[in-house]
Amino acid sequence: MEQVSANRSHAGVQGVYTHRSTSTGTPMTFSVFVPDHAPGAKLPVLWYLSGLTCTHANVTEKGEYRAACAEHGVIFVAPDTSPRGEGVPDAEGYDFGQGAGFYVDATREPWSTHFLMRSYIEIDLPQLVAGHFPADMDRQGITGHSMGGHGALTTALRNPGRFRSVSAFSPIVSPLECSWGEKALGGYLGPDRTSWRAYDACALIDDGARLPDLLVDQGTADNFLADQLKTHLLEDACARAGMPATIRMQEGYDHSYYFISTFMAEHVAWHAKRLV
Amino acid sequence: MEQVSANRSHAGVQGVYTHRSTSTGTPMTFSVFVPDHAPGAKLPVLWYLSGLTCTHANVTEKGEYRAACAEHGVIFVAPDTSPRGEGVPDAEGYDFGQGAGFYVDATREPWSTHFLMRSYIEIDLPQLVAGHFPADMDRQGITGHSMGGHGALTTALRNPGRFRSVSAFSPIVSPLECSWGEKALGGYLGPDRTSWRAYDACALIDDGARLPDLLVDQGTADNFLADQLKTHLLEDACARAGMPATIRMQEGYDHSYYFISTFMAEHVAWHAKRLV
Repeated sequence: MEQVSANRSHAGVQGVYTHRSTSTGTPMTFSVFVPDHAPGAKLPVLWYLSGLTCTHANVTEKGEYRAACAEHGVIFVAPDTSPRGEGVPDAEGYDFGQGAGFYVDATREPWSTHFLMRSYIEIDLPQLVAGHFPADMDRQGITGHSMGGHGALTTALRNPGRFRSVSAFSPIVSPLECSWGEKALGGYLGPDRTSWRAYDACALIDDGARLPDLLVDQGTADNFLADQLKTHLLEDACARAGMPATIRMQEGYDHSYYFISTFMAEHVAWHAKRLV
Repeated sequence: MEQVSANRSHAGVQGVYTHRSTSTGTPMTFSVFVPDHAPGAKLPVLWYLSGLTCTHANVTEKGEYRAACAEHGVIFVAPDTSPRGEGVPDAEGYDFGQGAGFYVDATREPWSTHFLMRSYIEIDLPQLVAGHFPADMDRQGITGHSMGGHGALTTALRNPGRFRSVSAFSPIVSPLECSWGEKALGGYLGPDRTSWRAYDACALIDDGARLPDLLVDQGTADNFLADQLKTHLLEDACARAGMPATIRMQEGYDHSYYFISTFMAEHVAWHAKRLV
């Protein structure tokens, strides 16, 4: 692992790092904020998975999480959204290929060589974080935005007990039911829609997966709400399953970091309460 | 004035606008955050002047001021740092020409046609803001970063009584005493250094200008501290003048928005206390 940068911020250190990922077979860049802490102390970890087109940099610059993470003593990890670079396949459009890994392990060529973002998030990066940062891996939470909200929900649902707290900002709640999801899962996994269900929060819940609790914020002025995000499908799935869920429609807010940053401190506090 | 964008954020609206400036003779872009407020209410205004190379966008995206401005009911205005575009002269280097207006009214060709940033900040933009936003122009504060910290201090010192509160992040405290200042003031104003004194916070204080109070934060790990910013010169000038000043050296912080955002909420609160 190499350190790209380190800046003192909000009584902690905001770092950016690169490492060579076994899962993707490429260099991967990610950011970690570590609040000041007592020598030898281990802090809880909050994962933040980003949305389409983003890298670690978007939330690191615009997410406004550091004050809250410093207050609550929480490490914040922001990975990239896909492998990148020469030799990594890409596609036309912002919603498939580089910047759009969808947090799946691709099984179709040419994507299956490098686009193993599920393994990267579930195996590769946690091992690295556990080995290099003062992280208490028994106290992990996960959140994310849009495609990353989908990633947070599905990663938590597939790994019961790993995350004590799960939230999302304007998540894609059911890739099976929107064009972003159909393009991505069809492209990475092929036409057999049963193979998609491990990457669909609503399908995972319908198939029996459960979380102890859930927080979702969704803006009502979000351009993607009606056609792609479809928050009501998650409300319905949680209701069918009898699974507790706090799903808040936020009046007038859109899909941008102006929305995310507004509710970030509340999300960090919500996670911190469950990670103490 | 045209609205470029408007995003709901932190219980307010973050807008970006353009207008044609009489002072610069060019279109100018700026951002304004207006917290929710009672119908007909007028809110205090905090001006934020940005540093070298920046536009309104840097602080708008990375400044983390909205939560504090919403809490205290303060409008936040972020202008550009110079005129820009075709037909506007420019120079090699990041520290002169476009993106580096230094908040002066240039008197030397070819700069004197468009580079009238002092007039833009003191006359043009305040008139526009007063006319288009619910701004109480009897309650104004001003702050800024680096070149913009210089702009905030000198604008306030030249306009006694206009600003009830003045602060700065890592300001250039004496352009007469650093290479950034010598290049900019020499280029915009010519070699007569007496004409520079209206654009030098320490010289203005030595020449009799006073502020009721002052807050400055400066990182100790700032690469520009020793050669360009020279905070101690401001401490000395305030001491000579018997002028109250809270100048805080912040251990380990650098020149970036990671530093600015850390102390932004404290600055907003400091201004708000004086703007009630």
